[in-house]
Amino acid sequence: MVFHIEYPRVIAARKPAGHAPAAPRYTLRWDEPVGALVSEYRAIQGKDLSQARQSHFLELIRRGFAESHGPSAYEIMNFRDEAGYTNGVAVGYWADATSHARWSLGSDFSAWFASDDRLAETECGYWRETILVPYDRHETIYSAPGYRIGLSRIPGSVIVPMTTNGYFGAARDRIPLSAIDRLESPLKDSPPRASRVASLGRRLRATTPHNLCALRSGQFWEGAGPEQLRDYMDNLQPKLMRGMDYLTGHKAETGTLSLRIMTNLDHEGKPRAETSVLAYFLSLEHLEAWAKSHETHLDIYRHAIAMNRKYKEKREVVTWHEVFIVPTSSGFEYVNCHPDTGFLPYFPLTCPHSVKAGEI
Amino acid sequence: MVFHIEYPRVIAARKPAGHAPAAPRYTLRWDEPVGALVSEYRAIQGKDLSQARQSHFLELIRRGFAESHGPSAYEIMNFRDEAGYTNGVAVGYWADATSHARWSLGSDFSAWFASDDRLAETECGYWRETILVPYDRHETIYSAPGYRIGLSRIPGSVIVPMTTNGYFGAARDRIPLSAIDRLESPLKDSPPRASRVASLGRRLRATTPHNLCALRSGQFWEGAGPEQLRDYMDNLQPKLMRGMDYLTGHKAETGTLSLRIMTNLDHEGKPRAETSVLAYFLSLEHLEAWAKSHETHLDIYRHAIAMNRKYKEKREVVTWHEVFIVPTSSGFEYVNCHPDTGFLPYFPLTCPHSVKAGEI
Repeated sequence: MVFHIEYPRVIAARKPAGHAPAAPRYTLRWDEPVGALVSEYRAIQGKDLSQARQSHFLELIRRGFAESHGPSAYEIMNFRDEAGYTNGVAVGYWADATSHARWSLGSDFSAWFASDDRLAETECGYWRETILVPYDRHETIYSAPGYRIGLSRIPGSVIVPMTTNGYFGAARDRIPLSAIDRLESPLKDSPPRASRVASLGRRLRATTPHNLCALRSGQFWEGAGPEQLRDYMDNLQPKLMRGMDYLTGHKAETGTLSLRIMTNLDHEGKPRAETSVLAYFLSLEHLEAWAKSHETHLDIYRHAIAMNRKYKEKREVVTWHEVFIVPTSSGFEYVNCHPDTGFLPYFPLTCPHSVKAGEI
Repeated sequence: MVFHIEYPRVIAARKPAGHAPAAPRYTLRWDEPVGALVSEYRAIQGKDLSQARQSHFLELIRRGFAESHGPSAYEIMNFRDEAGYTNGVAVGYWADATSHARWSLGSDFSAWFASDDRLAETECGYWRETILVPYDRHETIYSAPGYRIGLSRIPGSVIVPMTTNGYFGAARDRIPLSAIDRLESPLKDSPPRASRVASLGRRLRATTPHNLCALRSGQFWEGAGPEQLRDYMDNLQPKLMRGMDYLTGHKAETGTLSLRIMTNLDHEGKPRAETSVLAYFLSLEHLEAWAKSHETHLDIYRHAIAMNRKYKEKREVVTWHEVFIVPTSSGFEYVNCHPDTGFLPYFPLTCPHSVKAGEI
């Protein structure tokens, strides 16, 4: 069985008639039906976060992910954020929302993370971003069929060739729900403006608006030979960073809410030849507008396609992404984090209320 | 077009081989594809709630529902809860989650409901329960094809005959996702115990666990002739009330979290010959266990079937229900409500945090 969902279209596809992609691309399918997909980020943050502290947290989460109902796959990364804080991050992947819920409600790691003790750790903060979508609200693309990363590390997934790529609007066309839903933001005409909240010393949960667009876009060049490595370092990576700088520097115009450029770490916590960008946009339309019309994206896009055409199956650099269109969610939590972290500047916040049985 | 979703089954259907239902039943389909369904309850609550106060609120919500992106259909009801408080309730239905999100974020009514002024109204409380599910997480059943109520009042819905009824497990079989997901509660082995929180004077939001089961079950006997009216009053209604009393009196054993027996009101606020029960169970399995094995449900079930067989298409009493299997949600809010309201006793609570731009 190759599982996927398709709806009878009431909204036209963007794919031009007779389109043939300029370069082969691949996407994910499944051996068994999948109802929902979850990617959950858990992180530690600190202005002067020691290596030991970061490693300790990443070891905790590794053990947490190994508990019952933990993720089917995970990765460890780190990055320095725009405020100059170091963040150590783990992302776990589930293809089963019930299993994810069991882990969230029942694991020792979750209890540790939820404990008021975390607020007493004044020298660091923690955050969690849970991206949970029904199957019909995601899409994936890989430049090569052989490298497993992100969602594609979940057992039961299959990387298959496709032709829904190589034109603007292809990402939308790959999201099954787009056949029947425009995936618009309810805040399209009144995007949120950034504000600064007193987030230090507090546990705050953000509620994101319907149809938020979450993107994880990855680059893998481990084992690339000197020629392709040089091209990646001299050309593709600088173009990519220019694009990310543009989005980060023009948040309001582009609908970018948060963008982190993360480096994958190996089991010893050392950097791998692999990065990924975790970015959130108010809507898919915002991401599309940048991708379609801004020179910084066109530069990335053209270079990646040119290298694919040049090297074909000998291409040694893998690029990929996964996109999720997230329904209204309160799965974003910030504990003693600086006020520019994640969604703190943008969306309504709630404080978890510690309830004791028999409180009144 | 008749829209519905079906998955390739990896979990066997409950339907016995060769099953033919004892009585005809009907369910809902759609003219156009539907991605999600929303039913949202908004209510006023007071110990000595005056008729004027209740009417004023119901008028406010009627006007609110008429704002842009308001529901496609709504109903007005009231009931006395277990604590003896009077509750005036409106339920709105949407077949479009983006439209619902726009109304929730942009309507004057939502702003009024969210205002801190509500906490200053010491003589009454307010609550909101938002049930939002992807299409594949619901099912409906109607005893007759001609009466429109609940979801079936949404334009574009079609009441069609079915044969997925008349056996235990039929409700599950009608939920598309049940073909690939057991719809279990992550709290199956550790159901929540009721506690009392200091809820008066506060705005609290409850987060419900994955796969909560929401049921609205309705009874309509307007225009029934003397014979069928007497049977309803003397037989079916008392059996129904006995069943509801049992669930209310045995919450922990049955997994019942909340159960309200509501009376529909006409446009002048007068009771109609129509009731509906809004009940929440920790999981579908809990509702099924009662339905399958408890004499109070068997009594209701057998009597309804007997009357259907006796009167066939001349049956003048309509019974129906709609079930939603709700993913993890924070769509349940209680403002100055007594501590036994809704999910207040059961689930983790958060307090919306009033953030002012430039707070620090």
